[in-house]
Amino acid sequence: MVGTGPGDAADLSPRALQALQEARVIVGYKTYIQLLAPLLTPEKEVISTGMTGEVDRCRQAIDRARAGNSVALVSSGDPGVYGMAGLALELLEQEGLLETLAVEIIPGITSATAAAARLGAPLMHDFVVISLSDLLTPWDLIEKRLALAAAGDFVIVLYNPASHKRTGQLARAREIMLQHKRPDTPAGIVRNAYRAEESVTVTNLEHLLECPVDMLSIVIIGNRETRRAGRFLVTPRGYRL
Amino acid sequence: MVGTGPGDAADLSPRALQALQEARVIVGYKTYIQLLAPLLTPEKEVISTGMTGEVDRCRQAIDRARAGNSVALVSSGDPGVYGMAGLALELLEQEGLLETLAVEIIPGITSATAAAARLGAPLMHDFVVISLSDLLTPWDLIEKRLALAAAGDFVIVLYNPASHKRTGQLARAREIMLQHKRPDTPAGIVRNAYRAEESVTVTNLEHLLECPVDMLSIVIIGNRETRRAGRFLVTPRGYRL
Ligand SMILES: C[S@@+](CC[C@H](N)C(=O)[O-])C[C@H]1O[C@@H](n2cnc3c(N)ncnc32)[C@H](O)[C@@H]1O
Ligand SMILES: C[S@@+](CC[C@H](N)C(=O)[O-])C[C@H]1O[C@@H](n2cnc3c(N)ncnc32)[C@H](O)[C@@H]1O
Repeated sequence: MVGTGPGDAADLSPRALQALQEARVIVGYKTYIQLLAPLLTPEKEVISTGMTGEVDRCRQAIDRARAGNSVALVSSGDPGVYGMAGLALELLEQEGLLETLAVEIIPGITSATAAAARLGAPLMHDFVVISLSDLLTPWDLIEKRLALAAAGDFVIVLYNPASHKRTGQLARAREIMLQHKRPDTPAGIVRNAYRAEESVTVTNLEHLLECPVDMLSIVIIGNRETRRAGRFLVTPRGYRL
Repeated sequence: MVGTGPGDAADLSPRALQALQEARVIVGYKTYIQLLAPLLTPEKEVISTGMTGEVDRCRQAIDRARAGNSVALVSSGDPGVYGMAGLALELLEQEGLLETLAVEIIPGITSATAAAARLGAPLMHDFVVISLSDLLTPWDLIEKRLALAAAGDFVIVLYNPASHKRTGQLARAREIMLQHKRPDTPAGIVRNAYRAEESVTVTNLEHLLECPVDMLSIVIIGNRETRRAGRFLVTPRGYRL
């Protein structure tokens, strides 16, 4: 299970690259495999399915491994953050293969910190990571977590903030955060961090919904001390300067 | 501001490596610079100070940059997660240099996901990142955040869980988490992830204090669905299998 970072080969770790080069079979979501194509030799078997086929894709990876192949199951970012690592471990256990196959999880730069780097340093203090996708999580629980995170004055990082079909969630999340965070709390949106067509927007909670946000974006909302410094966002850690 | 990942060169991104190779001056905490030494050419100026000199170290980096040098300010992991990026941006702003110097933050694999990879996939669902160091943060606020995170059934990642001088914090954190999380909630400790003398311990909240934890460790406590799968920890995302 290989994390490939935000998307550019410059952010792919040598450990991940080596795993991809050594694998006979590469399994992953189409877009990511295309980003990696220049690094891969043509004799590899590539299994890439569309967005919703996670379980299928994972089962195919396991079948190929059971047949004796070295398999790289690719996730963008880190495979353990809303990626494929958990599902793969669960399926491997179900198939009784956890102890017989050599399993390794190779970490990657997750989009929370990739996006943060583009914005400056918004994650310098305690933060939460929440996915706004309610495909697999009851929306009530997401709302509850947003409220508690805002009440704790955490910096909040939102994955999966919106999709074509889902646009109401971010509006509702904003309302909840506004119960605890000031409207002028700085916020940032990074779309396609470290990929072609990257865009970086600095705004605040009040104006959050006026900015373009889609499923390729990370949204970061500051804590009560987060502020702008030039074009950057900074959350002070508390040093006396 | 360069993030060098958990410690092994295999986890250092090519972008970070290039920045280190191009810099005339490397500034950072001693241990990390030593880990990097084999990658660096001898003609570089190296400024490394001890643990408490963050502000000093940062000011020296800025002085060298103002004098026209390319400077790499090194943090382990990601520079924006309890690293040097925020402080550096604040000091650059104070000195009026934010717009005149070319400033870049280069992300790295942060120890939360590095440790998680060693444990399996404990971060597959919403999580919080909290530092237990009260050097710069009032302990009351840390307690409040722990309580809210536990109430929200977040997976909890603890940075700076203990030091020689500070050992009571983890015990207190455990008590607070036990008000919302079951004693058999799986937990993991990774010491020196991806470094020599790495150790990985899988335990649970009840037995957390019986395991060795120090300032080079990450502690991860699961949510109500986190479970063991073979030698791994997994937090299910919710797929039907
Ligand atoms: C299925 S999750 C995968 C997360 C990935 N495993 C990681 O660690 O970054 C997909 C979500 O990650 C975020 N994401 C992934 N890559 C991104 C990038 N390059 N820029 C901004 N957001 C990204 C978006 O929020 C997207 O909806
Ligand atoms: C000052 S913070 C730096 C964090 C770093 N910027 C990051 O993103 O990982 C130091 C804390 O990070 C954690 N840490 C850093 N490197 C680690 C490693 N290789 N294994 C386990 N924990 C680590 C420990 O909790 C330590 O107390």
